[in-house]
Amino acid sequence: MVAFGGNALLRSGQKGTYQEQLANVEQTCEQLYPLLKRGYNIVIGHGNGPQVGNVMLQHEAGRKLFNVQAMPMDFCGAETQGSIAYLIEQGMNRVMVRHGIERRVVSLVTQVVVGADDPMFANPTKPVGPYYPKEEAERLHAETGAIYREDPKGNGWRKVVASPKPLKINNIDIVKQLADAGNVVVTVGGGGIPVVEKDGLLSGVEAVIDKDLASALCATLIGADEFYILTDVPKVYLNFRKPGERALDVITVAEAKQYLAEGHFTEGSMAPKVRAGILFVENGGKESVITEAGQLSGEGCGTRIIR
Amino acid sequence: MVAFGGNALLRSGQKGTYQEQLANVEQTCEQLYPLLKRGYNIVIGHGNGPQVGNVMLQHEAGRKLFNVQAMPMDFCGAETQGSIAYLIEQGMNRVMVRHGIERRVVSLVTQVVVGADDPMFANPTKPVGPYYPKEEAERLHAETGAIYREDPKGNGWRKVVASPKPLKINNIDIVKQLADAGNVVVTVGGGGIPVVEKDGLLSGVEAVIDKDLASALCATLIGADEFYILTDVPKVYLNFRKPGERALDVITVAEAKQYLAEGHFTEGSMAPKVRAGILFVENGGKESVITEAGQLSGEGCGTRIIR
Repeated sequence: MVAFGGNALLRSGQKGTYQEQLANVEQTCEQLYPLLKRGYNIVIGHGNGPQVGNVMLQHEAGRKLFNVQAMPMDFCGAETQGSIAYLIEQGMNRVMVRHGIERRVVSLVTQVVVGADDPMFANPTKPVGPYYPKEEAERLHAETGAIYREDPKGNGWRKVVASPKPLKINNIDIVKQLADAGNVVVTVGGGGIPVVEKDGLLSGVEAVIDKDLASALCATLIGADEFYILTDVPKVYLNFRKPGERALDVITVAEAKQYLAEGHFTEGSMAPKVRAGILFVENGGKESVITEAGQLSGEGCGTRIIR
Repeated sequence: MVAFGGNALLRSGQKGTYQEQLANVEQTCEQLYPLLKRGYNIVIGHGNGPQVGNVMLQHEAGRKLFNVQAMPMDFCGAETQGSIAYLIEQGMNRVMVRHGIERRVVSLVTQVVVGADDPMFANPTKPVGPYYPKEEAERLHAETGAIYREDPKGNGWRKVVASPKPLKINNIDIVKQLADAGNVVVTVGGGGIPVVEKDGLLSGVEAVIDKDLASALCATLIGADEFYILTDVPKVYLNFRKPGERALDVITVAEAKQYLAEGHFTEGSMAPKVRAGILFVENGGKESVITEAGQLSGEGCGTRIIR
C-alpha cells in the first residue's frame, strides 16, 4: 500500500496547468517504479487537498457566474477521485510502457464509512473551500447547516468540516481481489468519499478523511505487507530543523508513540503520518515506511516503523 | 448492459440540487430493479452531457474569479465519472437495501480509445462549454488550438469538439470479470474519457464519445446477452409525433437500417440510439432494447432490435 499527497500532482508554486499536472504525476509514478520492478502488488491511496480546494472554488464561482448549483464536499471529493485517478492512470501508463511492464491500473470510486457519532463531528476544525464575507457565511449556514468560522488571518469566513476516523472501506474485498491479481489499484482517493452508515444505507457527509489514516485502514484490510507513506522529506526526524536534528531509521511502535507524545512531529504534517504508520503495524502489518518517493529505489529507505 | 443519459440524473426544469440529483438517481436505479430481480449481471454505462457542461462552466468561472486553471474536456469528463458513479452507487445502495439484495456496485474510471485518424477530428461539430465573445474565443484558439464556432442563435462563440468512434475500452476484461462475479459495474461514464493510443501510450484528447456507442462496444466486448438503451419514450416510433405514428415492437437490423435511411429517427436523439442498438446485434449480440426505464418491469418492453 502506497499513500501520497494530492500536492504530488498539483504543486504549490506552479500554475497547475494540465501539462504540469501530467508531468508531476509521471514523475511520481516513475518514482514508484522500484516497487513495480520488485514485482510488488500495489494499491495506491492518494490525497486531494489542493484539488478539492480548487473544485470547491470552481463550484462557488460557477454558482456566482452561471447559476450552477454548488455541491457539498462528498460530491466534490468524488469529482477529484475521477480526475486524479485518470491522471495516475496516465502517469502509470507512461512508466509501464517505458519499462515494458504489462500490468493494469484500475481505479475505483471509493466510499469510506465514518461514524455518525464520531466526536470530531461535534467540533469541526478543518477549514475548506472559499472565503466568504460574514453575512454570506451566515446566510449559507442558515441555508445548509454548514458551519463557518472566521479565518485567523482576516481573509474572511470559511466552512469548517470534521475529520472523522475511517471505519470501513466500501468494496475493500474487490480492491484486494484486483490487487492480488497483479493490477495496480487506485482507491480511497482523498481519503475516500465520506459516508455514514445506518441500517446498511450509506449517506454522504461533509467531512475530510485523513488520506494516510484511510490508506492505513486499507493496508490493514487487504493484508498488505508494507505500507509506504510518501512525503517531501527522506526520513522522519527528531528535533526537525532544530539543533540536535536526528534522522530516524528504524523505530518501534512504542518509540514512535513516545516521540509523538514528546511533540517531535508537527500536527497536520508529520504527526498524522506517524500515527497512520503506527496504526498499520499495531493492526498486524509488518512495517510502515515514511519517506519521499525519490528514495524508493534505495534499499531500506526512509523511516521504518516496526513492532 | 444498460445505458442511460446524464439527464436521468440532472434534469432540465430542475435546479440541479444535490437532493434532486439523489432523488433522480434513486428513481432510475429503482427502475432497474426488475433487471436485478431477474438475477441479471449488470453493467451500467451512463451519459454526462448536462454534468460535463456544468463542470466546464465551473472551470471557466473558477478561472475568472479565482484564477484556477481550467482543464480540458478529458479531465472534466473524468471528474464527472467520479461524481456520477458516486451518485449511482448511492442510488443502487438505497434500492438494494430496500429490496434486500446483497450485491456490490463497483465503479471504474474508464478511458476509451478513439482513432487519432478518426475523420471526425477533421471536422469537429459538437458544441461544448461556455459561450465566449468573439475576441476571447480567438484568444483561446490561439492559446490552446481548440476550435470555436459562432452559435447560430447568437449567444456567442463556443468550443466545438469531435465525436469520434470508440475503438477500445481500457480495462474491459476487468469490467467483464467483475460483472461475471455478480457485481453491478459502472463504466464508460460519459462515453468514456477519450484517449488516443500510440505505441501503447494513451493520451487524452478533447472529444465527446457517444455514450450509446461506447456502451454498445462495451456490451459486445463483455459478451452481454442484452443491451438496454434507456431513453424518455417507451418505444421507437415511425413518423414520431406525426400523422401515421407507429410504435415498433420487434425489428430486424435490416429494418432498423432501412428506417434510419428513410429519416424516421432524429439525429442527436433517437438515430444514434438505433445505430448503437444495430451495432451490438451486428457484432453478435442477441438483442438491443430501446425503451424508457419505467418500462423495464414489463415483459418484452420497448423496441427490440434482433438479427
